[in-house]
Amino acid sequence: MARVAVVASATSAFVKQSDQSVAELAAGPCAEILRSNPVLRELVDCVLVSSCSNEQYLGPVVSEMLGIQPKLAQRIDNLCNSGTNSIATGFSLIASGLCSAVLVTGAEKRESTGYRLTSDITRGSYFLPVHWAALFAKSYMRKYQLAEEKLAMVPVLNRKNSAKNPKALFPSEVTVDQVMNSRKIVEPLKLLECSSACDGASAVMLLSEKLARQVPSTPVWISGIGQRTNSASLAGSTPELSRIDSAIHAGRDAFEMAGLRPSDVDVAELHDAFSILEIMALEDLGLAVAGKGSRFLETGDTVLNPRGGILGCGHPVGATGIAQVAEIFSQLSHKAGERQVSSTLKCGLVHNLAAAGSSATVMIMSAN
Amino acid sequence: MARVAVVASATSAFVKQSDQSVAELAAGPCAEILRSNPVLRELVDCVLVSSCSNEQYLGPVVSEMLGIQPKLAQRIDNLCNSGTNSIATGFSLIASGLCSAVLVTGAEKRESTGYRLTSDITRGSYFLPVHWAALFAKSYMRKYQLAEEKLAMVPVLNRKNSAKNPKALFPSEVTVDQVMNSRKIVEPLKLLECSSACDGASAVMLLSEKLARQVPSTPVWISGIGQRTNSASLAGSTPELSRIDSAIHAGRDAFEMAGLRPSDVDVAELHDAFSILEIMALEDLGLAVAGKGSRFLETGDTVLNPRGGILGCGHPVGATGIAQVAEIFSQLSHKAGERQVSSTLKCGLVHNLAAAGSSATVMIMSAN
Repeated sequence: MARVAVVASATSAFVKQSDQSVAELAAGPCAEILRSNPVLRELVDCVLVSSCSNEQYLGPVVSEMLGIQPKLAQRIDNLCNSGTNSIATGFSLIASGLCSAVLVTGAEKRESTGYRLTSDITRGSYFLPVHWAALFAKSYMRKYQLAEEKLAMVPVLNRKNSAKNPKALFPSEVTVDQVMNSRKIVEPLKLLECSSACDGASAVMLLSEKLARQVPSTPVWISGIGQRTNSASLAGSTPELSRIDSAIHAGRDAFEMAGLRPSDVDVAELHDAFSILEIMALEDLGLAVAGKGSRFLETGDTVLNPRGGILGCGHPVGATGIAQVAEIFSQLSHKAGERQVSSTLKCGLVHNLAAAGSSATVMIMSAN
Repeated sequence: MARVAVVASATSAFVKQSDQSVAELAAGPCAEILRSNPVLRELVDCVLVSSCSNEQYLGPVVSEMLGIQPKLAQRIDNLCNSGTNSIATGFSLIASGLCSAVLVTGAEKRESTGYRLTSDITRGSYFLPVHWAALFAKSYMRKYQLAEEKLAMVPVLNRKNSAKNPKALFPSEVTVDQVMNSRKIVEPLKLLECSSACDGASAVMLLSEKLARQVPSTPVWISGIGQRTNSASLAGSTPELSRIDSAIHAGRDAFEMAGLRPSDVDVAELHDAFSILEIMALEDLGLAVAGKGSRFLETGDTVLNPRGGILGCGHPVGATGIAQVAEIFSQLSHKAGERQVSSTLKCGLVHNLAAAGSSATVMIMSAN
């Protein structure tokens, strides 16, 4: 399979409310990439916009705002998985030979309809994501006797990282006590264990291997992609509520494509829209054995969610998957600045989910 | 480049108003394909939904309705070009090796926001597509001294074809007099020269060459794809109003990829949302020389719009590009029934545009 590189990224500040439109948000990090890498402007032959907003034809709108005339421009949506779906699509457009330089940008505003699970009527009026997340948490905690304090460690650790990320929605640390004492949303999940809808955008530039060798860059290669869509709703999502079937499939396929194993992963962005999901992700991906995700979280030697995760950064759904890939790119190309966790990182992983684990994308990225 | 085949298609009746939701419409022709080709059900590893509707996560919703668990499921939008963009995306997912069996479906309801050009403020309150179409018509007619009666031949010829298509919105012929005497919408375009928004859906099944050889089918190959996005609005669309720059680029690229020439095309689906566009398409693609599109329409030996075009079939924007590809597939695989124009067709072309020619897709399809 042809190789595809990430050669640049930019992420906006994630904020509670911005005065920009979705298109303006989406164009922001693209403009930043093109300003910092002017040679890329002439190369872009595809613009993909990831968003769940109701704005029409964002692909050509963002292209026109940037002054770019690509071959292909379109919007892609698939709930919280929109961003990673868009990057997989960009990968395929390059690997197929149809395009050679794909700008993938994602943006959301917190009033987006993408936060509402309107098609899932299996849960009656329990239509907010926290309702299914609470089912997962209850089920997992019962099966593995996990204490609430252990669950609370997820936001504690991720907020430790987001405290170093000035673009995060929550650039501050929290303690276990603060998490435990924060308002209970749906038993057993507390406010600080639930991510926040917000406004934000993130973009990455993908190039064919040929172009990546020609431009000044430190390419990071997308070496594995695994995806799985089980359903549009909780009912068909996963046979067991203590693991997420789609992520298990996606992880296996991604590792197989990359020819790597979970133990090869140096740094990972894991989908932590709710605390329980990060613990389950570690197990679904094979980084930790079943029931030991919490222990791995605290003692494993894989760097987790260095940007601060979704809990720390906020969750503009169309942007999240792209911001995850942008962070792994930054870490593997040693551009993460104060958040740079090590200079010897070779292999990164991105794990992203749509509502209730209805779909999952796993990407493996390699420094060389 | 890896070869990608169309192996099945289905198109719903295009109607003024259906009582189905967008998701139900989109699932309809997919279910028909899977019923007629049960072997395909186990193969599908991607579901792409083309639609400009405001419904969320149509990819997984349609997958779940069909009882399919693909790797990737997502919605794609880019105005009237949504369907052909989705097929190009499906092509790339297969040619890249990420997927091997992509179900591409498109659906729209006539109340869709996809018919409104909300982002183009260059034309003040002239926001309906007919306003830019009238500019093209005026400009072309002035430059080439084209009589209004010649323009009227476009719906006359396409309605002759749609009269043989029971699924068309307008399955009846019209005369030049009827066109000329129909209500003037925007000078010089008359009602019968303007397409109608409607409800409808169409789907095609794409397979890798390997799978296409394994299943019982008469594969038709997508041998060329050309795409170009010039703008999101009329102002940046084309430097000259008597030709459509994006289509010229897309056509050249598609023929180059296929290693074919305009004279090789036996049958073509051309975007005729307004009469003038079909005449311009013939010239933009090199089928006719500049100013001679009208003559080619009446005397050329390429079969044009055998399903009845957009003027005859109606224009459910998300479905149109897919219905065009479905028709060329049917013609080249000799499955067009009463509309089968010849049994010796080898090469087909699909030409699709988004508003004001802001973007164009051209596909070349080959019987072997």
